[in-house]
Amino acid sequence: MVTIKEIAKECGVSTATVSNILNGKKNVSDETRAKVMAVVERTGYTLNYVARGLRRQKTQTIGIIAEDIGQFTTPEMIEGVMEVCEDNGYKTIVQNLRFYSRWNDIWFDNEEMCNTMIYPVVQEMAAIQVDGIIYIAGHARKISKYPTQFNIPSVLTYAYSQDESVPSVVIDDEDAARVMVKYLIDHGHRKIGVLAGEQDNLHAKLRVRGYQKALYDAGILYNPDLIIYAGWGKEFGYRESAKMLEKGVTAVFCMSDQIAGGLYQYLFEHGMQAGKDISVVGFDNQVISDYFLPGLTTTKIDLVGIGRTAMNLLLDKLDGKETEKLIKVPCKPIKRQSVCKIK
Amino acid sequence: MVTIKEIAKECGVSTATVSNILNGKKNVSDETRAKVMAVVERTGYTLNYVARGLRRQKTQTIGIIAEDIGQFTTPEMIEGVMEVCEDNGYKTIVQNLRFYSRWNDIWFDNEEMCNTMIYPVVQEMAAIQVDGIIYIAGHARKISKYPTQFNIPSVLTYAYSQDESVPSVVIDDEDAARVMVKYLIDHGHRKIGVLAGEQDNLHAKLRVRGYQKALYDAGILYNPDLIIYAGWGKEFGYRESAKMLEKGVTAVFCMSDQIAGGLYQYLFEHGMQAGKDISVVGFDNQVISDYFLPGLTTTKIDLVGIGRTAMNLLLDKLDGKETEKLIKVPCKPIKRQSVCKIK
Repeated sequence: MVTIKEIAKECGVSTATVSNILNGKKNVSDETRAKVMAVVERTGYTLNYVARGLRRQKTQTIGIIAEDIGQFTTPEMIEGVMEVCEDNGYKTIVQNLRFYSRWNDIWFDNEEMCNTMIYPVVQEMAAIQVDGIIYIAGHARKISKYPTQFNIPSVLTYAYSQDESVPSVVIDDEDAARVMVKYLIDHGHRKIGVLAGEQDNLHAKLRVRGYQKALYDAGILYNPDLIIYAGWGKEFGYRESAKMLEKGVTAVFCMSDQIAGGLYQYLFEHGMQAGKDISVVGFDNQVISDYFLPGLTTTKIDLVGIGRTAMNLLLDKLDGKETEKLIKVPCKPIKRQSVCKIK
Repeated sequence: MVTIKEIAKECGVSTATVSNILNGKKNVSDETRAKVMAVVERTGYTLNYVARGLRRQKTQTIGIIAEDIGQFTTPEMIEGVMEVCEDNGYKTIVQNLRFYSRWNDIWFDNEEMCNTMIYPVVQEMAAIQVDGIIYIAGHARKISKYPTQFNIPSVLTYAYSQDESVPSVVIDDEDAARVMVKYLIDHGHRKIGVLAGEQDNLHAKLRVRGYQKALYDAGILYNPDLIIYAGWGKEFGYRESAKMLEKGVTAVFCMSDQIAGGLYQYLFEHGMQAGKDISVVGFDNQVISDYFLPGLTTTKIDLVGIGRTAMNLLLDKLDGKETEKLIKVPCKPIKRQSVCKIK
């Protein structure tokens, strides 16, 4: 294989100049850079990353471990992480654990099962000497056994780390729900139903708390009967719609856009319309919510922001700075046409 | 750092046994495996991948290069590739070029610009000695300058390679369109409009050809005036709806579900309904199409299947087998309620 010396000789520059160009330093003229890169490309010269890492004690590489790239929340978080990495001269490599495609949803509360997959992947990241790891959960929950044996600075996103040495960046479920329900109250609604996820789910618990807070702030009695728990999907929303409407609510807070999609379907089949006959809000601002007719008012999760925040936190850790243990990234209400005023 | 010898000694087994366990071989009892893994985990032992790679001349690692993980077609293709990798004992690493988030859509026809990003990433894959590369395009087009200098067996997905040594796996746009339009014809439609992408786009060209074939097979005159070209988004579908309906068509073939979403919005605002007042079909079977009311009949792109096929093709290449140069993976019509019979 061609060496850096041979490239330098052929281009009539010093090996230091070639090295600077290969390492992305800016103190080289465009002309020289073009000349050297032409030779590099022609010869197929490859950097010896591991050797370079040993010299520098840093590989300038961040490992991203995703529980499932197919989960709708994941790609945007990866995008946010990569944006900050590029701005700071870090490369990234991604590992995908495929939890959903492997196990559907039985892994949510089974940390031991998850760790049979997580451990070897973190170990592999250690073997290729990444400087740090961003771990992207596919589902919000408490994680207490993230592998820390390898001493790689790590940050968890979308789940709550129970380990002091591993900080987390999550969405602010509680406040997002409070803001959304307050928006309904501001439109005159006082009897507001909730189509919620599973009762023991962390998202659901926090969003119910936000709902309760909004009611409390407005002096509205909390009636637990107005909450129906069951799941996150469209089927659930559709199935529980009749029961919810029988309660005489004027507005429904759906804990996912998919649940709202089921309610929309029920309304459609019964000649009713969101934003006219009843007010509906969702959660997530998935692409679908912009295609609902009328458009669904919902809560945007700032997924790119979570990724960016997590990576900035990791950079602070790599610089040896003291960092926060938990950052909640605020959500943002997206107002479309599914909420009407109560006269 | 702890060595494999020390682990073997502590567990009272041979170094070969430890090595077998670490390399995922199955000829070891569960008890021994558990004992060894406990020590491996406690000591934080990491495999030296590069050294192992040099010994074996293979790293059992496949590099996946995605043009943009955020593109809706990408995660499922990655999923398919990873499934086959796992079944065959290959690890994967993913690189994300972020073309859409970096450049919006100005990169489609600028291969030189793309290569400023592709080249260094393939080079990096060479440096970490992957056995092969799956390159996942974010947009169908012809690719003529995929970097082959590094002699890494590669397969392109979703785009058409112009290089004999790099095979491609793509969707069968033409036949998918033919099947969908035939479905409309079978429901009695003869005046079928098309809301198409850009005129010079490869998807659009092939799908128009499929549309023409279906008309030809049914003995229906082709009227070029019934095709409106402009783009792929909802806004375009909405904007061109009035013009399309004025043509007196009884059915509209939309070249994306998003375009169909725009048409649905127009119908909604004018008191009309798909599947009742006019027939509508989409393309892609994106999640949104299941939330349309009534549900949108559309074409499912078998993205997981493309990923699987590409990886199987790469395995054949790695085995030194002669492979096909181009595989077209068939699409599948998904029938919902947006098409009605013409009496």
